[in-house]
Amino acid sequence: MKDKKIPTKIFLSESELPKYWYNMNAVMKDKHEPALNPKTLKPCTLEDFSEVFCEELAKQELNFTDEYIEIPEEVQDFYAMIRPSPLTRAYCLEKVLDTPAEIYYKFEGNNTSGSHKLNSAIAQAYYAKEQGLTSLTTETGAGQWGTALSMACAYYNMDLTVFMVKSSAEQKPFRKAVIETYGGKVIPSPSETTKVGRKILEQFPGTGGSLGCAVSEATEKALETPNCKYVLGSVMDHVVLHQSIIGLETKIALDKYNIEPDVLIACVGGGSNFGGFIAPFVKDVINGTAKYKIIGVEPKSCPSLTRGKYAYDFGDTGKMTPLLKMCTLGNGFMPAVSHSGGLRYHGMNPIVSKLYHDGYIDAVAVEQTRVFEAAVTFAKSEGILPAPESSHAIRVAIDEALKCKETGEKKKIVFCLTGTGYFDLAAYSAYNAKTMSDYVPTEEDLKKGFDSLPAVE
Amino acid sequence: MKDKKIPTKIFLSESELPKYWYNMNAVMKDKHEPALNPKTLKPCTLEDFSEVFCEELAKQELNFTDEYIEIPEEVQDFYAMIRPSPLTRAYCLEKVLDTPAEIYYKFEGNNTSGSHKLNSAIAQAYYAKEQGLTSLTTETGAGQWGTALSMACAYYNMDLTVFMVKSSAEQKPFRKAVIETYGGKVIPSPSETTKVGRKILEQFPGTGGSLGCAVSEATEKALETPNCKYVLGSVMDHVVLHQSIIGLETKIALDKYNIEPDVLIACVGGGSNFGGFIAPFVKDVINGTAKYKIIGVEPKSCPSLTRGKYAYDFGDTGKMTPLLKMCTLGNGFMPAVSHSGGLRYHGMNPIVSKLYHDGYIDAVAVEQTRVFEAAVTFAKSEGILPAPESSHAIRVAIDEALKCKETGEKKKIVFCLTGTGYFDLAAYSAYNAKTMSDYVPTEEDLKKGFDSLPAVE
Repeated sequence: MKDKKIPTKIFLSESELPKYWYNMNAVMKDKHEPALNPKTLKPCTLEDFSEVFCEELAKQELNFTDEYIEIPEEVQDFYAMIRPSPLTRAYCLEKVLDTPAEIYYKFEGNNTSGSHKLNSAIAQAYYAKEQGLTSLTTETGAGQWGTALSMACAYYNMDLTVFMVKSSAEQKPFRKAVIETYGGKVIPSPSETTKVGRKILEQFPGTGGSLGCAVSEATEKALETPNCKYVLGSVMDHVVLHQSIIGLETKIALDKYNIEPDVLIACVGGGSNFGGFIAPFVKDVINGTAKYKIIGVEPKSCPSLTRGKYAYDFGDTGKMTPLLKMCTLGNGFMPAVSHSGGLRYHGMNPIVSKLYHDGYIDAVAVEQTRVFEAAVTFAKSEGILPAPESSHAIRVAIDEALKCKETGEKKKIVFCLTGTGYFDLAAYSAYNAKTMSDYVPTEEDLKKGFDSLPAVE
Repeated sequence: MKDKKIPTKIFLSESELPKYWYNMNAVMKDKHEPALNPKTLKPCTLEDFSEVFCEELAKQELNFTDEYIEIPEEVQDFYAMIRPSPLTRAYCLEKVLDTPAEIYYKFEGNNTSGSHKLNSAIAQAYYAKEQGLTSLTTETGAGQWGTALSMACAYYNMDLTVFMVKSSAEQKPFRKAVIETYGGKVIPSPSETTKVGRKILEQFPGTGGSLGCAVSEATEKALETPNCKYVLGSVMDHVVLHQSIIGLETKIALDKYNIEPDVLIACVGGGSNFGGFIAPFVKDVINGTAKYKIIGVEPKSCPSLTRGKYAYDFGDTGKMTPLLKMCTLGNGFMPAVSHSGGLRYHGMNPIVSKLYHDGYIDAVAVEQTRVFEAAVTFAKSEGILPAPESSHAIRVAIDEALKCKETGEKKKIVFCLTGTGYFDLAAYSAYNAKTMSDYVPTEEDLKKGFDSLPAVE
């Protein structure tokens, strides 16, 4: 059964690890439209971004020229501790599916944050420390980002306040414990601790919150705290830049064994793992020389690519962030509570949005019960309990492999397994007990969201 | 700071992975005394062991001659999926401690069972399947073994009933969910479902249970179920045999970079990770050619090595198992509830016991608050939230490194990090909230346990 030429796990040696991140903005033929200052409606300047973000991150956000950006040595050293992540040939899953396809996954969950999020968290904490900041604020959905940033802040001895989407905080009591163990402070969002939080609570009493709300609260808190900045774990181009480490390692590992992929798949919420995973692969797609297709997988409950509009929108519910041109359901879209808190976001990274809008990449939306079905199949064959978010990619990878079973094609399917589901057992329990439902927004639900879009072309 | 000659993580390639387990019983100058059939008080025969265990495992239990025992190819393939585990140089921890010592850890937690337990679980499930069995029973303390075996049974499509120590089941609600996701059935122990369970409940109403009780219940259940055997995750020599994969990989990795260890450290409960970790290192210790010392770390609340007797005892509270010559607190010793459920066992693997009794290895007992202090220091510097059990080894590794700081010695400290603490957040919360206490059994507590020892020389 096992093809002995390809090991089950491809690990890179330390000397093979990338020393540069990959900046997609440098290779886009048509760049995405610039972020706008919401007050002036003019393109955001370095000064605009630097009000909220660390200066080095603001510079990265505005870098449309350098294809490769050096990873600071300290961050490389930290990466050497948590990386490389293995590229694993899913021999056992292939056997269970009885498919002629070859399935590979890049597994990012082997650190305590449980996901790829630490790749950007450590970079952002490093730049904050370098700039002399003493504290950070952030938001978290599923809790992976909050955990990752609390780890990074513990490493650099910085204070951290995490606004955690309330529904996630309730589903995952132990997320709070792990963030606190790393010294972070957790506030369920929306909260009474900020103006914008109180306003949202008034407007939507009893809401489970959303990433959009939590972003607003964390931003407000950062602006009010001395020597503090706001950092975030997705959506922005600089986050995707840091996550390109995933794609770069994947590409080196594939090249090492002459594996030519046919399909690249990743789940997509704000776009950070997806963008990072595909980063070094898009140049060939844009140039028309790629033999592979790229698929982003989103939840049917929050379908910003497949049912969203490509428009300028705020990144947050409180309308405080710069305006981004992106695929969005509208900042006022309040996603239903689902078990994939990390994908409950109305918008999408501008690069990913532009690539999708220009037809370079595909997107598929899937129901959560089918996602968990795939997750359990994967867990039983590959020995890893995947995060619900990550399992969106598993679902489509399995679907592709099953298509190959019908056609006899030996496609090489490569997907990003962003993280583990150790903090999602309440979700698995619901799935096991068959009490999980599939919510799909109606046209009317979507209209409400679209009505919140700002009138900016 | 970083010694560039030694990478942060040493991974072995698939071709370097061991194809044989290491059998310490073959190289012991003085073998440990044989297990006795409790009815005849004669050495257990293959038939005796085969009543309860799979036949191949019974053979391994009685193998005192073969230094190397081949790992079945299917198990090797599975190992290739979950292994190799990295041997990591703890550069960041060294920096935080400001020690001249070099610290290395073999990290076994990168699979969903969260620990080394899967190394033996998959082997045991494989042999059970080969023998044509359709179901298995087992006990679990912290839940790591139960999770591992549920994964192995899912892989081989076998039914599984897990008797989980009640206090652990209550501390860790999500352990149940993950075992159930893998298709296992969880029963908190002691339970009303077995004769021995009902008897224990009568004798100790409201008890949190113990591994010894759970072993009794699982054994009874297996004997009553057709086509079913009992398997266990520690204590027996065949389990230590499977866990030798840890030590073998460690040794290959150390040799690859010419790292000569000064101290080898592992936590010790039933002895499986400890025995497996030290397996390929003991020959030199026995022959007097080793430059290193070996330290087992146990909880002060359950000190079977440091305060136990070396005597024949039952492996379970219900007095159903063969009699093993071991370091024991007595099968009637009821350990206090602690946050290291995996180390709450009255006895100890016979090989480990013999090595300790003969003075080849050292043992240290530590308080749980000091263990969690070490765990948090480690988590913040190395990015891995360790299991409380594993953190016993961290505590002593840190203590050794701090001694080096005083003396200026550049000792090479190597320890086994058996697993992650994702299911132990209630324990971390208690530590964070400073509500954790340190129980140490009184002489009277110990006497009660010793009084339960059978009168067998």
